[in-house]
Amino acid sequence: MRREVFSGRLITVCVDERGYELVLHPAAVAIAAVDAQGRTALVRVHRPMTGGTLLEAPAGLVDAGETPEQTARRELREECGLEAGRWERLGGGYSSPGFCDERISLFLATELRSVGGEDPDESVRERLWLPLEEAIGAVAENLPCQAALLLAARRLSPNRG
Amino acid sequence: MRREVFSGRLITVCVDERGYELVLHPAAVAIAAVDAQGRTALVRVHRPMTGGTLLEAPAGLVDAGETPEQTARRELREECGLEAGRWERLGGGYSSPGFCDERISLFLATELRSVGGEDPDESVRERLWLPLEEAIGAVAENLPCQAALLLAARRLSPNRG
Repeated sequence: MRREVFSGRLITVCVDERGYELVLHPAAVAIAAVDAQGRTALVRVHRPMTGGTLLEAPAGLVDAGETPEQTARRELREECGLEAGRWERLGGGYSSPGFCDERISLFLATELRSVGGEDPDESVRERLWLPLEEAIGAVAENLPCQAALLLAARRLSPNRG
Repeated sequence: MRREVFSGRLITVCVDERGYELVLHPAAVAIAAVDAQGRTALVRVHRPMTGGTLLEAPAGLVDAGETPEQTARRELREECGLEAGRWERLGGGYSSPGFCDERISLFLATELRSVGGEDPDESVRERLWLPLEEAIGAVAENLPCQAALLLAARRLSPNRG
């Protein structure tokens, strides 16, 4: 039996029969968007929790009625002003399964083209491009984003299938 | 200004001035423990949030008074019955910085030796070893653990420094 102790706009907190706190959270996506030159689209995002901004791969929450694939297309357009001709699912899993049910789907987007587009949340402070290997280090503060870029590097390596 | 709306054993939930929910959570560690044959120590862990068990790299919460390095040594002993002759920090970051301050430090443990040891939480249901490349896929449901193993594979690759 789980007892609900808080319900907000984003999360619901329950306490289970052993006294453990469990957080219900929407699903999310993170996107490795890599152009033909191996450059990766990144965004600097305001993250109140960290006390400042973080450099991240484009990412966001799955809205009601969306599939993760639809969210990924929307977020890439909103956060980076890009569309991708080719989408591939790299994987996905829990961000912190010890206490939270948030699942993050990871995508590789290639064949990119600029379409403009604005971030409606106004959380993106800067758009930039870095070579994929450099981007892997640059997003290290966000582990799901880093996992997406690491998987993308393996997928795009000429030594792998 | 943040208003506290819930405070439990593990987490504290606040709502900020814009109405966003923020979760305060202890720091944590995840460990890529790789032996001389390239086999990686994994654990099957009970995760109530997922409705079952997950295959993961050894991991756990930083206790009060511990450094992440001390936590990593303790968790490797408790969850896997192993000690490592060599420790290296692979990186670390937020598990989900949009709403939570949990930071997970990632370590590579090598020169492993079996010392026995029990998991006091009784959350570990099985201990097993898999080749590192196979382990990367096997722990995909836990993104921080997967990031640790992906970084370990890069670190241990003969093509890298």
